[in-house]
Amino acid sequence: MEFTVQQIADLLQGTVEGDKSAKVNTLAKIEEANTGALAFLANSKYEPFLYSTNASAVIVSDKLEVKRSVSATLIRVADPYSSFSSLLQYYQSALIASKTGVEEPSFLGKDSQIGDNHYRGAFSYIGSNCKIGNNVRIFPQAYIGDNVHIGDNTTVFAGAKLYANTIVGSNCTIHSGAVVGSDGFGFAPQPDGSYKAIPQIGNVVLEDDISVGANTSIDCATMGSTFIRKGTKIDNLVQIAHNVDVGSHTVIASQTGISGSVKIGNYCVVAGQVGIVGHISIADKTTVGAQSGVSKSVKETGTIIQGSPAFDYKQNLRAMAVFRKLPELQRDLELLKEKAAN
Amino acid sequence: MEFTVQQIADLLQGTVEGDKSAKVNTLAKIEEANTGALAFLANSKYEPFLYSTNASAVIVSDKLEVKRSVSATLIRVADPYSSFSSLLQYYQSALIASKTGVEEPSFLGKDSQIGDNHYRGAFSYIGSNCKIGNNVRIFPQAYIGDNVHIGDNTTVFAGAKLYANTIVGSNCTIHSGAVVGSDGFGFAPQPDGSYKAIPQIGNVVLEDDISVGANTSIDCATMGSTFIRKGTKIDNLVQIAHNVDVGSHTVIASQTGISGSVKIGNYCVVAGQVGIVGHISIADKTTVGAQSGVSKSVKETGTIIQGSPAFDYKQNLRAMAVFRKLPELQRDLELLKEKAAN
Amino acid sequence: MEFTVQQIADLLQGTVEGDKSAKVNTLAKIEEANTGALAFLANSKYEPFLYSTNASAVIVSDKLEVKRSVSATLIRVADPYSSFSSLLQYYQSALIASKTGVEEPSFLGKDSQIGDNHYRGAFSYIGSNCKIGNNVRIFPQAYIGDNVHIGDNTTVFAGAKLYANTIVGSNCTIHSGAVVGSDGFGFAPQPDGSYKAIPQIGNVVLEDDISVGANTSIDCATMGSTFIRKGTKIDNLVQIAHNVDVGSHTVIASQTGISGSVKIGNYCVVAGQVGIVGHISIADKTTVGAQSGVSKSVKETGTIIQGSPAFDYKQNLRAMAVFRKLPELQRDLELLKEKAAN
Repeated sequence: MEFTVQQIADLLQGTVEGDKSAKVNTLAKIEEANTGALAFLANSKYEPFLYSTNASAVIVSDKLEVKRSVSATLIRVADPYSSFSSLLQYYQSALIASKTGVEEPSFLGKDSQIGDNHYRGAFSYIGSNCKIGNNVRIFPQAYIGDNVHIGDNTTVFAGAKLYANTIVGSNCTIHSGAVVGSDGFGFAPQPDGSYKAIPQIGNVVLEDDISVGANTSIDCATMGSTFIRKGTKIDNLVQIAHNVDVGSHTVIASQTGISGSVKIGNYCVVAGQVGIVGHISIADKTTVGAQSGVSKSVKETGTIIQGSPAFDYKQNLRAMAVFRKLPELQRDLELLKEKAAN
Repeated sequence: MEFTVQQIADLLQGTVEGDKSAKVNTLAKIEEANTGALAFLANSKYEPFLYSTNASAVIVSDKLEVKRSVSATLIRVADPYSSFSSLLQYYQSALIASKTGVEEPSFLGKDSQIGDNHYRGAFSYIGSNCKIGNNVRIFPQAYIGDNVHIGDNTTVFAGAKLYANTIVGSNCTIHSGAVVGSDGFGFAPQPDGSYKAIPQIGNVVLEDDISVGANTSIDCATMGSTFIRKGTKIDNLVQIAHNVDVGSHTVIASQTGISGSVKIGNYCVVAGQVGIVGHISIADKTTVGAQSGVSKSVKETGTIIQGSPAFDYKQNLRAMAVFRKLPELQRDLELLKEKAAN
Repeated sequence: MEFTVQQIADLLQGTVEGDKSAKVNTLAKIEEANTGALAFLANSKYEPFLYSTNASAVIVSDKLEVKRSVSATLIRVADPYSSFSSLLQYYQSALIASKTGVEEPSFLGKDSQIGDNHYRGAFSYIGSNCKIGNNVRIFPQAYIGDNVHIGDNTTVFAGAKLYANTIVGSNCTIHSGAVVGSDGFGFAPQPDGSYKAIPQIGNVVLEDDISVGANTSIDCATMGSTFIRKGTKIDNLVQIAHNVDVGSHTVIASQTGISGSVKIGNYCVVAGQVGIVGHISIADKTTVGAQSGVSKSVKETGTIIQGSPAFDYKQNLRAMAVFRKLPELQRDLELLKEKAAN
């Protein structure tokens, strides 16, 4: 996609200084930009880059006083950061929207419906009895099992897998390699010490505005549903076990694992590589520090915990500070014991 | 799949109370069931739900005395829990069995054999010289490399990948995104500080009754085989490195990583997010607590360990209890030192 | 592939003792080898196996004195280990090279170029405007998005996914299930507590000689590029977040997670299950012990750290040794306090 600087300025209701017909085809940071790039200057700390940048155009403030010669064309706007953010949004939306139509071969099972203006990439698979909304993008090699429902404007990237009966809301993004609806890890120990699989016949429900990262796995419920509630964002390589219920607008960072039947509240922040044991509840607005192991329920809203096992993060910080000095503590104690023995 | 209550009762050798022609098409928990669902009541704690459930039918005990009006049809049996479990098994088996035949396009390499009553989903790939048993289900976009052997009744879900030369037994389940047989992580440091790949020409052997979770990776051996022995169950996102040998009827929970050449015994339980260093042995019936880091061999059968590095779990529990109080310990020690100095 | 012992000996410039026409079709360890296998003996500790092995041929030293009868044909060379290593290299190269041509159906987008002697497996997808070098192997179900560049001799295994705009150098190996270029995990908190996705329009650059393990995910930069520099090796299930820059000849073991905008130096070793917080720098030749949590920059070359949070590994070792004895320390302290109180 290529635009003239004037086209961009019109979009942003800005004014152009310099070559209006200069062409831009990408967005970049002012300190890294090359010819063809459009950058922005919002923080005066970066002003020196304005005079050295290779960008073809730079969005600057209406109020900026240019002190030296600038090779780039300038677009003057009221708020350069927010104008640039809008462009980023346009750019990404345009990229997604440019994917449209059906590439062959692709597979569409019987009695499945799919809405208007969709993209189905080559080697994508949609099973039987699926109901898929408008503006949905199914990238190549994605798998949508039987009876799956997907809302409007959702994107399923290349090779993501949705097992049968999964329900996905609108405006969701599911990244490559994510697996949604695999069997919960339920095995009943037998008298001879072997294990027998407990059938996992439930599903996964992703509500609206969910993001699921690359290579994340979310297991189906034994019966009923594993829930990810509206607006929650899940990073890459996260494990969510059967019958978990993650609240709304919660953020879960990479490589975290949530065991079976855990209930996580709304507006929580779970950092990376956290483990949460099964069958506990985490209150709303809880923050769990990275690499923590949460071994019991968190009852109070707004709690911040850290450590494995996790407890109050300030107390943990103080304990860790002493931990490093344990050899000195031990020596001091030995000296006192000797003294006391005499 | 839809059945009348009478059909279900005949299957379970139970007797019907109420509308024999009521139709059920799913299984659910009594407290969550909607119209069309069949639920069960085994624990008297849940009896109140019997009088409020929306289930179309409920499996109850021969001996249950109904105290109030019930809208659901009842199926009376000797042991409701075990009857319901059987139905779950039937249900899941029927679902799997309903997948049969070959969807096109799919790829079958030369000199490959596949047994009776199989399913090969669209875009599934089977290389050359493969031997695949009866009742095998290869879901869409699964990859079976050259020379792979698979036993009877095994299911390979959508997009799972088996590298060339992998051996899989009977009654195995391999979930979406699992990778079996990728190269072991072996690199020889060179004099200039760079690394040269050590060829990994071995394979992976999964014996019978193995379950491999979503997005788990199991590397091939450098030479010879990485083994997962009969009946072992592996959860999602687990890493098993080259030349590992995991014994029979062992359970490995999500996000655990097992380094190269580790030997794990039979009937072990390895909890989630555990790390095990390379070239050690873990005795039979060992239990490793969540997030532990196992840094040396476990020699005694039935050992329970915890922590990073891991040691006896009771001792670890006691040490962790004191860890939290380290700031107080430090202060007490300072006071004693002052006192002793005077 | 089958060879006579004489053919192997010619390749290695060795001399044959025994049946020159004996046939070998695989390589194996001397203690595990079966008929048809070629093994080697480099370490005298293994000499007893020479007299019991089922290998059809064994590579031994020019200087070895055979003490008992040997059923295998011998190939005498100056350095058995290095000769055997060369054979392993030949073997693996021959396996890869045997994959050639295009299996159908496969997808090649418009204006994409691919060099000589390539392999494109069935159901592989190459988008538009891609530039792919010579001797490249794209295995079945691999996904190469639009505008991707790939250098010579690179292998992309089954089902690996490269998002649009990814740049891959020469001699790289990308294993099954790896995802390169997925969106960075960037969400701006809104006044109502919900999150809005920050567009991630950058890409990933893998330089030459990179290895990316199975089910690893590497996110694209917000703008600009996430870099993996020449010669770096990444194991399975690793997470590399947006805008990370990993130096040359660095090794990152399985299940490690590197947060956004981290800069890692050259010649580092990062062990398994390590977590590194965002926006820090790690000096060249740093070693990070397994399961560590790195919470601040490492400034000195050659630093070795361990623990969560990580600090000097020797100090950590000493602190951990005392940690186990905390209950005894606490008891001793209590006794001293009592004594002092009297």
